[in-house]
Amino acid sequence: MSRSGSMRISRRPLLAGATVSAAMLTFEAASVAQVSAQPLPSWTDGTAKQAILDFVRVTTDRTNKDYVPPEDRIATFDQDGTMWVEHPAYTQARFALDRVHTLAPQHPEWKNQEPFKAVLDNDTAAMGKFSERDWAEILFLTHSGMSQSAFQDIVRQWLQTARHPRFKRLYTELVYQPMLEVMEFLRGNGYKTYIVTGGGQDFVRTYAQKVYGVPPEQVIGSSLVTSFETKDGTPELMRLPKLFFDNDNAGKAIGIDLFIGKRPYAAFGNSTGDREMLEWTGAGGGVRLKVLVHHDDAEREFAYGPAGGLPDTNIGKFSQSLMDEARANGWTIISMKNDWKRIFSFD
Amino acid sequence: MSRSGSMRISRRPLLAGATVSAAMLTFEAASVAQVSAQPLPSWTDGTAKQAILDFVRVTTDRTNKDYVPPEDRIATFDQDGTMWVEHPAYTQARFALDRVHTLAPQHPEWKNQEPFKAVLDNDTAAMGKFSERDWAEILFLTHSGMSQSAFQDIVRQWLQTARHPRFKRLYTELVYQPMLEVMEFLRGNGYKTYIVTGGGQDFVRTYAQKVYGVPPEQVIGSSLVTSFETKDGTPELMRLPKLFFDNDNAGKAIGIDLFIGKRPYAAFGNSTGDREMLEWTGAGGGVRLKVLVHHDDAEREFAYGPAGGLPDTNIGKFSQSLMDEARANGWTIISMKNDWKRIFSFD
Repeated sequence: MSRSGSMRISRRPLLAGATVSAAMLTFEAASVAQVSAQPLPSWTDGTAKQAILDFVRVTTDRTNKDYVPPEDRIATFDQDGTMWVEHPAYTQARFALDRVHTLAPQHPEWKNQEPFKAVLDNDTAAMGKFSERDWAEILFLTHSGMSQSAFQDIVRQWLQTARHPRFKRLYTELVYQPMLEVMEFLRGNGYKTYIVTGGGQDFVRTYAQKVYGVPPEQVIGSSLVTSFETKDGTPELMRLPKLFFDNDNAGKAIGIDLFIGKRPYAAFGNSTGDREMLEWTGAGGGVRLKVLVHHDDAEREFAYGPAGGLPDTNIGKFSQSLMDEARANGWTIISMKNDWKRIFSFD
Repeated sequence: MSRSGSMRISRRPLLAGATVSAAMLTFEAASVAQVSAQPLPSWTDGTAKQAILDFVRVTTDRTNKDYVPPEDRIATFDQDGTMWVEHPAYTQARFALDRVHTLAPQHPEWKNQEPFKAVLDNDTAAMGKFSERDWAEILFLTHSGMSQSAFQDIVRQWLQTARHPRFKRLYTELVYQPMLEVMEFLRGNGYKTYIVTGGGQDFVRTYAQKVYGVPPEQVIGSSLVTSFETKDGTPELMRLPKLFFDNDNAGKAIGIDLFIGKRPYAAFGNSTGDREMLEWTGAGGGVRLKVLVHHDDAEREFAYGPAGGLPDTNIGKFSQSLMDEARANGWTIISMKNDWKRIFSFD
């Protein structure tokens, strides 16, 4: 695929990752070779790649003042927009809408009841105006009323056939190859990699091992209340239509402390929902890697965010104030357009 | 120490672990040697030890139908009464009572306000009658109002000096040596060991690595609500006087699913608070090890529980119905008196 980008994108200011000279590239290529046998092959030799390489080098070097012992090597990754595609709608929202259609025969009342009516009518204009309350109602109803294992079976089945409207691929194929390489590089250097998502913990746990190499116990997400119920002598964990934990925004820092009890040394996000996770990571001592993925490649993926001319969006919102905070605090910004040679494994 | 026990204890029926003949012991000694270089050295050669050895043998043997792949090898351990002494009072309750005394100068109103007055007056009769609500009030007030890190510093300091009233030892020394050996044996065979406690998650996380070899992210416990607050530009997680999650009884099964997302293959408890954890473990397919520690050794530790003549207690309550359920379902009962050659590392 061409990487020239649209006119609108090319007018915006260059991001940090794009401001590398030929001389720097030569220098970096040499230092990369010293670190390991060519890690991060899908990355261009820019400041973003170098920030990751430098971070791993200093935190794994016993002679360095910023050395981090293996048991403290924690790296956390947002999922939607950081590890896989989140536009034009979150994958889990697509799943929920499909579930409304599937469940409709058991709910004849939905034909005349919003927000379900709009979904069943495929009224995209109305759906675009759904409130958070509308989405909560859809999510709770489609994600509850069954056992944990039954829910996960439903998710697995859906993921086997559902396809992205633009790429016509399975959602689990729409994972960013450069980010998989970061995860592998970190794990290869003793880091424990966690998914820390505002999305559903049990949803993501169905595929995180296979897709990201991250086991269920390293997936932290939002969750519903579950109840322990014994039916015919067999205990089940049943999903109730009530939020237990909202693992977004401040919830990400709280969730990390709740589930891990250690502060990350590296954190990757792409939206305001990741702000507190990055702040919490950055407030630790020593070297900490704080990274934001910026979606600035309309041709190969999608373009949205704070840079001049890019459309604003509520899905993966990257506010100007987040960009200002990132720049003021030396966070690394990944330009998908400039820092990534390819976006998907099939590119 | 003598292991003869009191008259009251010796009149109760023998437990499973004590009904081994000399012939069985000889056979078992041989099979133990085949499994590894003498695991579980503080255990007598009884059915409890054998159940643990057999479980590890079949679940780690690739040719066995009950083989468990390494990523699924999860073992969960209750703490109070299973890993360390819980009588005459839970260690964390002692900590809370000491904190009331420490904080009293800042709360002059406590002198005339129950339940604090009883604590400050050292009125053990009144404290023995505290309701759950009284304890909740004491726990919330003594465990909140500071950051997570400040709380953990307070716990660490307290553990350095506080001593058990009977043994006159640090609480972290009053750990059951045979159970440490089980943890080590399981870890040596690819099992990931978790503490799953009704006690405070952040309390236990301060020492679990050092005392049990269990890192913070493998300690699942009860927790308070925390809030993300930025003070002078630095984010803190502040502890609020409100329960977030009650990791006891059904909460243990729910907590395991929430934090791990996998069903354990082995679970160890000692009280009715562990019932659902063992039921949830047992309801999985294949071989699952369900174990209850029975405190029947008044001489070396404490004696309480369902067996004839032992006193009932609300601390580590082991009801007759739990014993009935254990026997009906083939759960393993550890007799501390008969199955353990020594109880503490200093014995």
